[in-house]
Formats: sequence, structure tokens, C-alpha cells
Amino acid sequence: MAEKITPRSEDFSKWYHDIVLNARLADYSPVRGSMVIRPNGYAIWEKIQSNLDRIFKETGVQNAYFPLLIPMSFIQKEADHVEGFAPELAIVTQAGGKELEEPFAIRPTSETIINSMFSKWVQSYRDLPLVINQWCNVMRWEMRTRLFLRTAEFLWQEGHTCHVDEADAVKRQTQMLEVYKDFCEEFMAMPVLTGAKSENERFAGAVSTFAIEALMQDRKALQAGTSHYLGQNFAKAFETKYQTQEGKEEFVHQTSWGVSTRLVGGLIMTHSDDRGLVVPPRIAPVHVAIVPILRKGKEEDVLGPCRKIAAELKKKGLSVILDDDDKKSPGWKFYEYEVTGVPVRIELGPRDIENNQAVVTRRDTSEKAQVSLDQLVDEVVSLQDQIQSALLKKAKAFIAEHSFTVKSYDEFKEKLDNPGGFLYVDWCGDSQLENVIKEETKATIRVIPFDQPKELGPCFYTGKPAKYRAVFARSY
Amino acid sequence: MAEKITPRSEDFSKWYHDIVLNARLADYSPVRGSMVIRPNGYAIWEKIQSNLDRIFKETGVQNAYFPLLIPMSFIQKEADHVEGFAPELAIVTQAGGKELEEPFAIRPTSETIINSMFSKWVQSYRDLPLVINQWCNVMRWEMRTRLFLRTAEFLWQEGHTCHVDEADAVKRQTQMLEVYKDFCEEFMAMPVLTGAKSENERFAGAVSTFAIEALMQDRKALQAGTSHYLGQNFAKAFETKYQTQEGKEEFVHQTSWGVSTRLVGGLIMTHSDDRGLVVPPRIAPVHVAIVPILRKGKEEDVLGPCRKIAAELKKKGLSVILDDDDKKSPGWKFYEYEVTGVPVRIELGPRDIENNQAVVTRRDTSEKAQVSLDQLVDEVVSLQDQIQSALLKKAKAFIAEHSFTVKSYDEFKEKLDNPGGFLYVDWCGDSQLENVIKEETKATIRVIPFDQPKELGPCFYTGKPAKYRAVFARSY
Repeated sequence: MAEKITPRSEDFSKWYHDIVLNARLADYSPVRGSMVIRPNGYAIWEKIQSNLDRIFKETGVQNAYFPLLIPMSFIQKEADHVEGFAPELAIVTQAGGKELEEPFAIRPTSETIINSMFSKWVQSYRDLPLVINQWCNVMRWEMRTRLFLRTAEFLWQEGHTCHVDEADAVKRQTQMLEVYKDFCEEFMAMPVLTGAKSENERFAGAVSTFAIEALMQDRKALQAGTSHYLGQNFAKAFETKYQTQEGKEEFVHQTSWGVSTRLVGGLIMTHSDDRGLVVPPRIAPVHVAIVPILRKGKEEDVLGPCRKIAAELKKKGLSVILDDDDKKSPGWKFYEYEVTGVPVRIELGPRDIENNQAVVTRRDTSEKAQVSLDQLVDEVVSLQDQIQSALLKKAKAFIAEHSFTVKSYDEFKEKLDNPGGFLYVDWCGDSQLENVIKEETKATIRVIPFDQPKELGPCFYTGKPAKYRAVFARSY
Repeated sequence: MAEKITPRSEDFSKWYHDIVLNARLADYSPVRGSMVIRPNGYAIWEKIQSNLDRIFKETGVQNAYFPLLIPMSFIQKEADHVEGFAPELAIVTQAGGKELEEPFAIRPTSETIINSMFSKWVQSYRDLPLVINQWCNVMRWEMRTRLFLRTAEFLWQEGHTCHVDEADAVKRQTQMLEVYKDFCEEFMAMPVLTGAKSENERFAGAVSTFAIEALMQDRKALQAGTSHYLGQNFAKAFETKYQTQEGKEEFVHQTSWGVSTRLVGGLIMTHSDDRGLVVPPRIAPVHVAIVPILRKGKEEDVLGPCRKIAAELKKKGLSVILDDDDKKSPGWKFYEYEVTGVPVRIELGPRDIENNQAVVTRRDTSEKAQVSLDQLVDEVVSLQDQIQSALLKKAKAFIAEHSFTVKSYDEFKEKLDNPGGFLYVDWCGDSQLENVIKEETKATIRVIPFDQPKELGPCFYTGKPAKYRAVFARSY
């Protein structure tokens, strides 16, 4: 507690970790690359989870649970899939005191084990579409890890679906991308670009990958969610077939889509400041912290009104902490609710009571106001909406200020270094040149936006005819 | 679908698996001992989870998440713990393409990894009590597995707490046992016995284990939840210390407590019958299934009123399926909602509309009634409560009918074979003799009830003075 937070301008990466540790969102664990999600961080994940889960179910998603362990032979069944994931697997070779005949991988993602069940469950077109999701842990043995953003083990949801044809599958792929986009904007106040990934960045085993990409305050992009059309690749590997209405046998067309605890990292790097975490009210585990200023022997004069205010705010659906712990000073408490990002703080002391007012502080702008006790509840409720909108507006403005259309590679490198952001270019589509650019500048294609211009200029890199407009950025 | 369900009287174990498979609650997976929880089963687990989680939080529990992998050296730090769990561990020896220097166990339970973090977080008496819970998967490599009841991987919650002294820890241990008991009775309509475990049945590393024990329809007990007082065993192994108010260093006193997806197995074996699953309304994912009987060309005459009824029931907070799928017959649908345990079914055909009535069927008793459409919504809402109470009453009566006080070993064996159930005996407390009884009869002490008689007779087995009254049963 109360360790100094490095300013963003000094060292962004250190700032990020200072926020995570000081707000007690997560901690390093004794297992290299795995983190511990502490209650403050887990409460945000629960908010993400419960809201997304409700929205998923409104679109017909059913939850299920599949085994953690995947037989190695399953992972090897889809050629691109094994190539993509083999280097990152954690492998169980012993169990119950014995060497296993066939080793298991801890799931890095579950397309294979789920298809082994789908092939049993899907018989006829009547069983389709099949739309399944699981909330679970997965493991990818990463070399360089960062709390929330890249960890060996992380929590996520993975949706897996089966459809009669490509059109129906792509409809679901698109729908889930929209769900993610809307959720990020409406709940997390984190606007995102959407579009397709280039071949280089595609999921191992997918025909196409769509993504949502957010922009962090250091002008680096964060891939915040993906939605894949898998074609019939896994269906063929696992014989997931159905009988059509005409009695023919066909392989199903599939999608998979996921978001993870990485979203918490995105939330931090979108909104937080040099004083600590900032959380949009719709995703905040606590909306209001009430800090009473107590006078010895007359505590009840202040605590009584505080309890009444807390009760009224709860009735309005807000989550409230009334911090009456007399072992801690008001100053300690101000710091605590600032660093942990509670959207609104109310201070109430004996003199405030005399004046029938309270001091209300917004976390996002640090604006303080004296508010009459008669209007306090309505004002604090209304502030939640105001903060939510203000954070989204600010984040949108940030993206707009850091989006550039560039025509040449020189301009590209210049903008990338200063100030950085999303670089829109007309692009020839050459995967090898994309790798060259990546090596030279660390920038990659984040998305190929769905919304393409009517006419394209020449490729910014080769001068050859462009295939599409693409958005490059440096990224996490 | 529509496979025959073996009657309970013929083969209880086969009946159980028939229910699980026909109601599509779970399925066998290609990973030996691991199951797949299908949407119908997972929806019940979600109901258990969301209700328990809300109750936990009301008692001050905070959720967090700790690593799946545990360094082997951690598990070895507590002597009893390693002895208890070593034979059941699944072990990761390779990761990221390399042999690991120190292998990891997949968590069988998380006392060790969590204490490695607690020892860092807990500094002062001001940090206590610390009351943490995680919802996660765990793995215990079992030889004989059964869907939901005993699987290599299962889902559970594990609470882990730190306290200043034994009294405060035991208070939490007792409180959580009460939470489990109340939840089982009030939500699952599954009454349980509570009490302490004998030394033989204690958790590996605990000072005392309390348990809730339910009685299944085959008169075998099911341990449905446990709450442990760990003393300072893990605190000493991991140096989880705090500074007292007087400035002294002390080891914390700890508890841990958990329930798992095994509860779903308990639910099935408490209430279901030879026609399929029976689910108490408070834990049922779907409360009402409406089956319209359609006449060609006049579908809307029936569907219109059905939609209105569905909307009104939803307004009352019930979860409703209106099954208007015209590819499936009413008979198929009756079977479907019977086998999956939907508490109330409504049938509505053209003639019913003419008579301003509907046919309402209770799943638990199969009672059918013609109900006026004007009273339908109120009647169906009220039926949910009636079914909930009736199931609890029936389950309580079943325990009462199968609880016996026995005075001799002969009587013990006789009652155990016919009819079986909870056998109350006065017991000398000899652990080795308990093992002899277990070998001879397969019965073990399920609990030593908290409520002890004022006077004890001689030990039913040895005739020596008894130490306490104990409840024996055969169990899962």
C-alpha cells in the first residue's frame, strides 16, 4: 500500500504495474508466468463476466464445461492448429503415480476436445445451429508475461458453434464481434476498431479471424477479443457431420470466439491516471465510497446521516462502501478509494452536517463539489452516468487524435514514433512485406476494417496497386 | 434421446447414469475420468453457484483466483497433506517445449499455493480475518469414476480464511457449514446431517473436518460439503504470520471449505424417479414448459394465448420455455420436459381454448389438473412453492424412515442391509475398529453429530464405554 505510482510520462510499463499492484488487482505468483487475481481485480472480472454472460444468453448461447486436459493426439489432428499451439503447451505426463501412456496438454483453447464431443452430439440439421460457450482457465506457456495482458494461465470464455453452412456461421462470427464491440463501448467505455485480421495474424486453424482492437494511452493497440470462422477444418479432423434435410451427409461449418482477463488490462490502460485506477461505473464493483470525518465522542452525529445516505444509494441500485473503520485516517481512506478507482467519493464531517451538505469528488476529473444533503442521492446517481459518458467520450477523442492516414513508409515511421496510434494505409496485401515492416518498426496490421473506401490509392509501401485499406499499429 | 431408463429397483447405479445421459446433464469424455458437463447440467450448476455466491458475499467472502499449477515442493511442505494427496496428483513435467526443472501438480485443492500468497498479504491483526474464495476446477486422479459424483476433474468452490485465533476460525468453519446446510435444504430440497468427521475421514492437513451428509434413494450417504479447521498447520509450513495488537508475531489460524459439482449428483439421487430428472423449482433452470397442441392452419389460435401466458409467467420471475417447434410432436415434447425435470408443464390445445382452460401437470407427482385460464398464472406460480415444499418434505420423511438407533453389531449389519440408511450408534471412538467395520460392512462414520445425547450407552461394537454417538452409513 501507499507505494509511489510511477507517472505514465516517465515509464508507462512501470506505471501499469504500479497501478495493478497498488490497487491490489493482481499479484505475481510463485508459478512463473501465472498471476494471482486479487479480490479487487476479480470483482471487475465478475462484472465483465456477468454482463457478457447475460448478453450471450440473449443471443441463444448455452454454457457447458469440457475437460481441462486434451489428448496430444487431438491437438495434432488439425495441421495449422498444432503448428500454432505446440510451442506453448504445458504437458501432463504423469498421473495417479504412473507415467501416462498418452500425454495430455492443458487446454490452450478447446476446439479439438469440443469437436470430439460435437461429433457425437450433432446428427441432423435439426441439431443446428449448436451454440456453446464455456468460462474456464486456459494455459499458454509464454516467455514474456505481464499481469493480465499476457500470462501463462488466464481466464476466458470460449464460444464454439456448429452451423449448416458458411453463411450461417459467418453471421454468428459477425454477431459475436458486434457483441464484444458493444460491450467494450457501453460497459467498459473502451471504444474499439473492428475488422478482419491479415493472414499473418489469423488464429491457428481458422479461415478468417475478426478482432476488436483498443488503443491504450501509450498509443499501442490491444487486441481485446477475436471471433473466428473455422470453416470445416476442425469438422473434417473430428468428423463432425450432420444429415441435411435432403438426407445427405455434410461437415458442419464452425466458429469460435473469446475474450479474456486481458480485458482488465485494457480497462486499466484506457482510463487510469497517475493517481491510480479509474473504472467506468457500469463495470465498477463499488460505485460510491463514503468517508465520514469523525469528532471524538460525537461519532454518531456523522455516522447516522452517513448510514442513511448509504441506504438510499443502495436502494437506487448503487454499490456503496461506508468506511467507518476508526483505525484508519480520512487521508488514508481518500488515498485508498482514489487508487482503487471508486467513481465517486463522499466526505461528510460535523461542519458539513451543520451546513446540510457533503463534499462530493469525482474520481475521473478530481472535481470537488459541495452538494446539499437534500440533493445528494440524486446527484451521486446522476454522476455515475456522467462519468460513464465522459470516460467514453475521452477515450473516443483519444483514438480520433491518434488515428492517421499515411501515404508513404517515411510518414508511417514518423507518425508511428510520434505520437503513435492507428495508422490507416492502402496496402498491397503482401504477407512477407508485412513481416518486413514488423521487423523494422514493430508495427503489424491490427485490422482490415470492414468499412473500406470506394477507391484505393497505391500501396504506401510498394507503390503497387493496393488490395485494401489496413490499420497498422504497435501492439501488446 | 428416448433411451429406456432402467428402474431404480432393478439397478440403482444404472438408473443414475441413465438419468444423467437422457436428461443430457453430462457425458463421458475421451479423457479417462473427466466428464463433459452439458448445458442442462451446467445450468443447474450455475443456479447452485449464483445462489451460493450471493450468500457467501453476504457473510463477507471475497472472490479471487489462484494458479492452477502448484510447485511440487509446496505440496510436500505439509506432511499429512502430501500423504493424502500425492497418489492422486496429475503432474506437468514439460512446458513451452522444455522439460521443467521442478514439476508442477495440477491443484487437487489450493491450501498450499494460497498460503504462499497469504504469507505475503497478511502482516497485521488489522488484515484479519481474511476471507477468500475461489470458483475453479481441480483434479484428483481417481481410479473409479462416476459422472458428477467422482471425476478426475471437477468444478468447485474452495474458501480459505485466516484468523487471529482458534475461536474466530472455528466460528467461520461452523458458519460455512450452516450456509451449506441451509442452502441444501432451502434451495436443493436436500436435507443433510451435520457434524464432525472422525479422525479416519478427516481432510489431509486439518485439525477438524465438519461435513454435511445427505441420504440418497439407495440409502447410501453422500458427503455433500466439508468445512475444515486447519489450525496453524499450513500457516507454519508457509510462514503465514501476523503481528498482534501487542506487537507479537503469531501464526494465523485457518479454515477451508468447499462444495463441488458433486451436488448435482446429490440432487439427482435425492429427487429423481424412474421417468427422469426431478428438480426443485428454486434450483431449476426452467420452471415451466408450455406445449401447444396445434391444428394445421389454425396455429395462431393456440400460439397467441400461449405467448401471452409465457409473457405473464416471465413477469412473475419464472423461466419459461414455449416449445412451438413444429418439427416435433407433442408426445416427444412431453417426454423431453419430463425427462429433463421441468417442474410444471402446461398443455394448451384448440379445445382447451374453447373451454377457457389448460392442462397443468406437476413433474414431481405427475398430478394433472384442468385450470381455468384466468387462474393459470397464479396457479403455476403457487405450484412452484408447493413442489419445492413437497420435495423437501418427502426427502425429510425418507431420512426419518431410514434413520435407526442400533445397539449391537448384529443389528447394525441387519439394518445396514435392509433397508440401509443412517445408523446411530454409541461408539468407543477406536479408529482401528472403525476400519475393521468398514472392511466388513463398507460402512463408515459419516458424522459425529454436534447434538450429542446427555447419556451414552456402551459401545455397540465393543461394549466398552462409548465416547460419543456417531452416525454410520454406506456412502458414495
